[in-house]
Amino acid sequence: MFSVTVRDHVMIAHSLRGEVFGPAQRLHGATYVVDATFSRAELDSDDIVVDIGWATEALRGVLADLNYRNLDEVPELAGRNTTTEVLARLIADRLASRVEGGGLGDSASGLARIAVTLRESHIAWASYERSL
Amino acid sequence: MFSVTVRDHVMIAHSLRGEVFGPAQRLHGATYVVDATFSRAELDSDDIVVDIGWATEALRGVLADLNYRNLDEVPELAGRNTTTEVLARLIADRLASRVEGGGLGDSASGLARIAVTLRESHIAWASYERSL
Amino acid sequence: MFSVTVRDHVMIAHSLRGEVFGPAQRLHGATYVVDATFSRAELDSDDIVVDIGWATEALRGVLADLNYRNLDEVPELAGRNTTTEVLARLIADRLASRVEGGGLGDSASGLARIAVTLRESHIAWASYERSL
Amino acid sequence: MFSVTVRDHVMIAHSLRGEVFGPAQRLHGATYVVDATFSRAELDSDDIVVDIGWATEALRGVLADLNYRNLDEVPELAGRNTTTEVLARLIADRLASRVEGGGLGDSASGLARIAVTLRESHIAWASYERSL
Amino acid sequence: MFSVTVRDHVMIAHSLRGEVFGPAQRLHGATYVVDATFSRAELDSDDIVVDIGWATEALRGVLADLNYRNLDEVPELAGRNTTTEVLARLIADRLASRVEGGGLGDSASGLARIAVTLRESHIAWASYERSL
Amino acid sequence: MFSVTVRDHVMIAHSLRGEVFGPAQRLHGATYVVDATFSRAELDSDDIVVDIGWATEALRGVLADLNYRNLDEVPELAGRNTTTEVLARLIADRLASRVEGGGLGDSASGLARIAVTLRESHIAWASYERSL
Repeated sequence: MFSVTVRDHVMIAHSLRGEVFGPAQRLHGATYVVDATFSRAELDSDDIVVDIGWATEALRGVLADLNYRNLDEVPELAGRNTTTEVLARLIADRLASRVEGGGLGDSASGLARIAVTLRESHIAWASYERSL
Repeated sequence: MFSVTVRDHVMIAHSLRGEVFGPAQRLHGATYVVDATFSRAELDSDDIVVDIGWATEALRGVLADLNYRNLDEVPELAGRNTTTEVLARLIADRLASRVEGGGLGDSASGLARIAVTLRESHIAWASYERSL
Repeated sequence: MFSVTVRDHVMIAHSLRGEVFGPAQRLHGATYVVDATFSRAELDSDDIVVDIGWATEALRGVLADLNYRNLDEVPELAGRNTTTEVLARLIADRLASRVEGGGLGDSASGLARIAVTLRESHIAWASYERSL
Repeated sequence: MFSVTVRDHVMIAHSLRGEVFGPAQRLHGATYVVDATFSRAELDSDDIVVDIGWATEALRGVLADLNYRNLDEVPELAGRNTTTEVLARLIADRLASRVEGGGLGDSASGLARIAVTLRESHIAWASYERSL
Repeated sequence: MFSVTVRDHVMIAHSLRGEVFGPAQRLHGATYVVDATFSRAELDSDDIVVDIGWATEALRGVLADLNYRNLDEVPELAGRNTTTEVLARLIADRLASRVEGGGLGDSASGLARIAVTLRESHIAWASYERSL
Repeated sequence: MFSVTVRDHVMIAHSLRGEVFGPAQRLHGATYVVDATFSRAELDSDDIVVDIGWATEALRGVLADLNYRNLDEVPELAGRNTTTEVLARLIADRLASRVEGGGLGDSASGLARIAVTLRESHIAWASYERSL
C-alpha cells in the first residue's frame, strides 16, 4: 500500500456542548495542523498516488471554508458539536467529495482511502480514516 | 475509524540483558516520549473518541509508576527485559485495564484499540497496538 | 550564558483590529504552543538556571488566565490588539512579575532574561525577549 | 502488533517525467528524511522486534547507494520515474532483501511487515508498506 | 526585542567545490526548510513586527527564484559555492532588499534584523543573521 | 553572523542531589537530544562555518564518553551535580577543546562561539553558550 500526505492548517473559534468538555464549553479557539493522507494499492501511470499539487490545493480549499471563522456561527455546522474528531471526519468527507468529483484528477479514481489528522497542540491530536 | 492521541513522557534508568544490546547492557537511561492512541469505529454521544482529559490523566497515572525510577529495581518488572517494545506493551496493557475498569468513563467501553508509541530519541521509536 | 526552556500551550479565541489582518479581523482562534526561556550568566547553588518544576508551574499559571477564553472579552485586555507579539510580551511580563515576586524561588533572583515564543502553527511564530 | 522505527536521511538530485510534475520536471533535488518501520506479531527471544543497531545499519546501507547522487544517472534507475512513492518502495524492497538475506539477524525472520516513509519537506511525505 | 518567523521550503540540486565536501562534490540535492525571522525593538502601530502575510509572500518570492533548479546552472550563482551558509546569506540579503524596497509595507522600515535558517535534514542546519 | 548546528543524542542514567530535584534525586535516566551550534562572523575559504562532517564527528566523540553510562559512576564527574545545564556546559567545553586542539580543522580557528542545547523531553531543554 502506498500513501501520500500533505499538511496545512486552519485557525478557528468554537465552543463545545457537554459537561465532559469542562472549560472548553466556553468560546475559545484552536489552530489545527491538518495532515491529509491519500492511499492506494498501486501507483498510477505517472508513478504517484495523487498529484501533490492538486492534493495540496484540495486541502487548502476544504480548509478555506473553515479558516478564520467562529464555527458556532457557520450555518452548515449549526447544531453540531465541532470536536476535533468531528472536524477530522468533515474534512475527510469533503476531500472524498472532491476526489469523487474529479477535483484531484482522473487517476485519483484509483484512491482507496483517505485519513485526516488534526493536531490541536504538541500533546493532542485526532484522526479519522475512511475508504473511498 | 476515529482515533485520539495524547502525549506525555517518562524518564527512567535501566539495563538490558542479552549480547544484542551491546553497550545498552550497562546501566543507562532514557526519556521516552509516549503517545497513547485510542480508537473506535463510531463516536460516543458527546461526539468524541474518549474524554481527552481522562485519557491524559490515565496516561499520566500509568507513567507515574515508572517515572524517575531505575526499572532494574521495580519489583513487578523483576526478571524482565525492559526493552522499548516491552514497555510499550506494558503501558498499553495498563491503559487497557484502566479503560476496562471504567477509569476513562462509561463511553470508553466503545473503544476498539489502543496503540502506544515510545520515542527514545529523534531517530528511534517503538510501538505496540492491541485490541480492547 | 545558560538557559532553560519549558513548553506549554493555550487555546484562545480573539479577533484583530486593523486592515492589515485581513480575514483575521473576524472572530477566530488559535492554539499557541508557548516556550518560556529563562537565562542567567552563572548557575545557582543547585547547579541549575531555575527549578524546572517551578518554571513549569509559573508558565501554567500565567497561561491559565488566558486558556479557553475569548480574549475579546477579557477585561484586562480590553482595547488591546491581542496579536501573537502582544501576547508573547504579556506572558513574558507576567512571568517576570512572578520571578520578582519570589514565585520561582529565591535563587531565581539571579535570572537575567526571559524570552517567550508563541508558535501559532507549523509555519509561523513570534517571540519577545526582555531583561529582568 | 509490535513495531520499531529508525530514521536516517538521503540527499539526491533528480528530475521527474510527466506534465503532472510541472517545475519538478527540471533537474532539482531533495533531502528525504527516511523512516523505516519493522513490524511483527510477537517479540523475539531478546524481547525486541529487531536489533535496532542492525536496523540502523541496514537502512544506512540501503541509503548509501543513493546518497549524494543524481538519480537520473544511476544505472539501475534508468528509465524509471524516481517519485517519492517509487523511492519509498525501492528502499522498502531493498530492506526486505536484507532481512531475507539474514542481514538483520536470524530472529528477523519473524518480521511480518516493512513500511518506509520519505519526508520531502515539512508539509509533504509518502509511504510504502509491504509484507515480508 | 520582538521577532516574527515564517517557514517555507525550497528543493534544489547543486554540487559543492572543495575536498572538504567529500561526496557532496558530486551533483546531488537538498530540501531546505527555510525559517525567516524578522526582529525589531518596538512593535508598529498595528502591534506587530511585520505583516505575516507579506513576510510569507516575500519569503515565497525569494525562494521561487531558486526552487526546482540546479543551482550550478543559475547564472547569478556562477562561480559561487552554494553551501547552506551561503544560501542562508543570499536569502537574508534578498529579503533585506525587499524590506528596504518597501515590499513588506511601510512599517517594515522599523525592522532591525533578519535571520535566516536553512534546515537541510533532521540533524543539520545553518543560519545567517544580519542587521537592516 | 553565521552558524551551523549538528544534532546527536546520548542516553544516560544519573541522580541529582538537592531537595529542589524532588523525585529526580532517585536514580533515573534521560535521553538528551543534543544540538551543537558553531558560530563565526565570516565564512572560511570553503564558504562554510565548519566542516559539517568533522563537527558531527566531534560531537559524537564527546557524547561517546557519556553514552550508555550511569553518570553517578563516571570518575571525572564525581561529586558534581549532572544537571542538564551542567552537562550542556561540559559538552560545550569539550567541543571547545577539540576546536582549539585542531580537531575540527585549521579553519575552525575562526570560530567565535559554541552553543549546546540538551533536549530532555518534548517540553523541556537547557542550553549553554560560550565564546571561543
